[in-house]
Amino acid sequence: MTPKIHTLSNGVRVVCDPIGGLESLALSIVIDGGARWETEATAGWAHLLEHMVFKGAGARSSREIVEAIEGQGGNINAATGQERTSFQVRCLTGGLPLGMSVLSDLVRRPTLDPADLEKEKGVVGQEIAEAADTPDDRVFELAQARAYAGHALGRPILGEVASLTPATAETLGVFHRGLYAADRIVVSAAGAVDEDELLALTEAAFGDGRAPDRPLNRPSPAAFAGGHAAETRKLEQAHLVLMLPGVSRQDPDFFTQMIFTEMLGGGMSSRLFQEVREAHGLAYAIDAYNDAYEDVGALGVYAGTGAADAAPAARLTAQEIKKLAANVGEGELARAKAQLKGGLFMRRESPLARAEANANNIHSFGRLFAARELAEKIDAVGPQDLRRVGERLIAAGQSASAVLGSKRAAGAGEAFAEALAAG
Amino acid sequence: MTPKIHTLSNGVRVVCDPIGGLESLALSIVIDGGARWETEATAGWAHLLEHMVFKGAGARSSREIVEAIEGQGGNINAATGQERTSFQVRCLTGGLPLGMSVLSDLVRRPTLDPADLEKEKGVVGQEIAEAADTPDDRVFELAQARAYAGHALGRPILGEVASLTPATAETLGVFHRGLYAADRIVVSAAGAVDEDELLALTEAAFGDGRAPDRPLNRPSPAAFAGGHAAETRKLEQAHLVLMLPGVSRQDPDFFTQMIFTEMLGGGMSSRLFQEVREAHGLAYAIDAYNDAYEDVGALGVYAGTGAADAAPAARLTAQEIKKLAANVGEGELARAKAQLKGGLFMRRESPLARAEANANNIHSFGRLFAARELAEKIDAVGPQDLRRVGERLIAAGQSASAVLGSKRAAGAGEAFAEALAAG
Repeated sequence: MTPKIHTLSNGVRVVCDPIGGLESLALSIVIDGGARWETEATAGWAHLLEHMVFKGAGARSSREIVEAIEGQGGNINAATGQERTSFQVRCLTGGLPLGMSVLSDLVRRPTLDPADLEKEKGVVGQEIAEAADTPDDRVFELAQARAYAGHALGRPILGEVASLTPATAETLGVFHRGLYAADRIVVSAAGAVDEDELLALTEAAFGDGRAPDRPLNRPSPAAFAGGHAAETRKLEQAHLVLMLPGVSRQDPDFFTQMIFTEMLGGGMSSRLFQEVREAHGLAYAIDAYNDAYEDVGALGVYAGTGAADAAPAARLTAQEIKKLAANVGEGELARAKAQLKGGLFMRRESPLARAEANANNIHSFGRLFAARELAEKIDAVGPQDLRRVGERLIAAGQSASAVLGSKRAAGAGEAFAEALAAG
Repeated sequence: MTPKIHTLSNGVRVVCDPIGGLESLALSIVIDGGARWETEATAGWAHLLEHMVFKGAGARSSREIVEAIEGQGGNINAATGQERTSFQVRCLTGGLPLGMSVLSDLVRRPTLDPADLEKEKGVVGQEIAEAADTPDDRVFELAQARAYAGHALGRPILGEVASLTPATAETLGVFHRGLYAADRIVVSAAGAVDEDELLALTEAAFGDGRAPDRPLNRPSPAAFAGGHAAETRKLEQAHLVLMLPGVSRQDPDFFTQMIFTEMLGGGMSSRLFQEVREAHGLAYAIDAYNDAYEDVGALGVYAGTGAADAAPAARLTAQEIKKLAANVGEGELARAKAQLKGGLFMRRESPLARAEANANNIHSFGRLFAARELAEKIDAVGPQDLRRVGERLIAAGQSASAVLGSKRAAGAGEAFAEALAAG
């Protein structure tokens, strides 16, 4: 039985998903808004805002916020994505009232002090530097910039120092009231949690009679642009991301592409792992991933290879995608389905994963899914569906890529595109 | 009630820890042996062996091993540490017999094919390259090499290409039979698992009447050496690891140092986070960790800073360690205890974390601990214990450090040592 979604008078939605046998819980407040809602001038503000609300909110200082949660043995976290911003508390049973008090303050009543803002721009500047230093962060950033060139989705979530510098407490406050509008907030709890208590706490924390927020305009639709980036850096390995335009979260073929991705490079029995790593020894790390948004999506492959192996690994990846699109084995299909379902059932035992999944499904689909319903969707996918999705991935004739490493590796993205197009 | 430890006739120990309400389980086979058991000539062999057993074991090929586990929706993993090697299956209930069949083959009946071995040396070579490229892997390696200079604990677990090259299927086979000796194996399951089934499966899989193994000699005791390393690399940030000689896992002050570390740099309310990041904005990431072995241990601090901020951050860290050793606040002590206990109780809800903790406790202490007993040990620590541990950390007059980044950051380790020694 899936839990019921409750809507408060001010538009905040609430969902409670008790899990038997647990003594801990997760409370998530997930906002249907993130970096994608920024303009070029406000690039990085969603993430900066997520940092800033921790500097003081409600009656609590920065230190009091973390002391409150950590003092009862819990922990508090937040994450900014392209489309969602999430604030989370993990704690033992009994920690719900304090968790709600702190998280609702963060989301609704941040202090946004000007002096704190200047200091926090420096901290985010260091986070930007750290991402630049980390090869497998940087290469994803480069590929994303090619895949969605000229669109918000192509910009790094952290933003750039130049777009953060002009933010003031006032302009960030306007951005805050727009992005964290009440009707785009879902409060989601899972684990050792009681629905009546959750509802009463949410009503008290959010039903504060505030005037309705002026929401930001919804972000403009994105499109897969494509293109190849290469950045030279003195590294032992070449880091490689290869992307094809795929399905959005709303696409009826969403589950089909998930299965396709799983067969291609999901686990150690996947084609890429077996061919590129095991049979040819061209990469230590290789895997495929789905990157889906509300309106667009992509299938991506990451590989870490030797410089001389980057182009061969990219070519082999293209060949494996074409082979898989042409012919799906029965055994591997059954395995990929079992993998996805196994992952699904195991994640449901984690309070945080469950709370987040529920909130995200409310945002994307306005409803929840029972594990059995998702399992049935996975089971319903047949070889002909996979062929259709595979052909669609290739037929677009587009790809995006990024290579980070020595000059010798630089042509790997083009090699991928050529091998994909070859008859 | 803690589960019972069973010992089979061949010395393998078994522990089963059912968790109510779950539909999944974790099965771990943990060996009391790892990189520390290597000589200079066999550096990296424990990790290479962990890779090699996946290339074929029992009647299964490399591909059949992963297909078996992934085909039933589970996943399989392994990890090599300095003192332990662990093989793990996560799966849904019903997956135990296959999990046991595969894992016991990996541990007891690896094929060790010469051609596979040559290929796998290349894959591990790429893993070594990847670690070298990742700043926060590399800086830990450099610091560890200073802390335990001249000892196996100071060598990277991955080894070096030069020490892997000479390995043959035969010499690695001898190493395998020594390292994975039956009396150093613990089979540990947690989650949706039945003790009688686990015992019967383990007896069948391990009680194979094989002649007793010739174990390797136990590794020699280690000592904290100390010293400062600096590696120049063109990076946006300076990556910094600072270490002080601390307690071993067997030390009566083990829990006291855990609390000390938590207060110093465990969470966002810790002294280092509040001072170095929040008050002075010198680092984006800063945290403290305990690194304990059977006979030695260290307290470590990692920071990512701007190049010019590396030495100031290191100095401030030294001052905060001295301040904490001199005076512990009541509130922070209560918070650190709540944090450690909260983490303990939440981890117990994860089947894998529980299975691994049980196995590690059997190896280190020959027994299991009820959560309540650990909580009592934590609660028993008082301010005078923390003062003693703090003074001990400083009084040794030793430190180890590593800095990775621009030349400007290079003196941060020495700055840390000087600030620590200053009256």
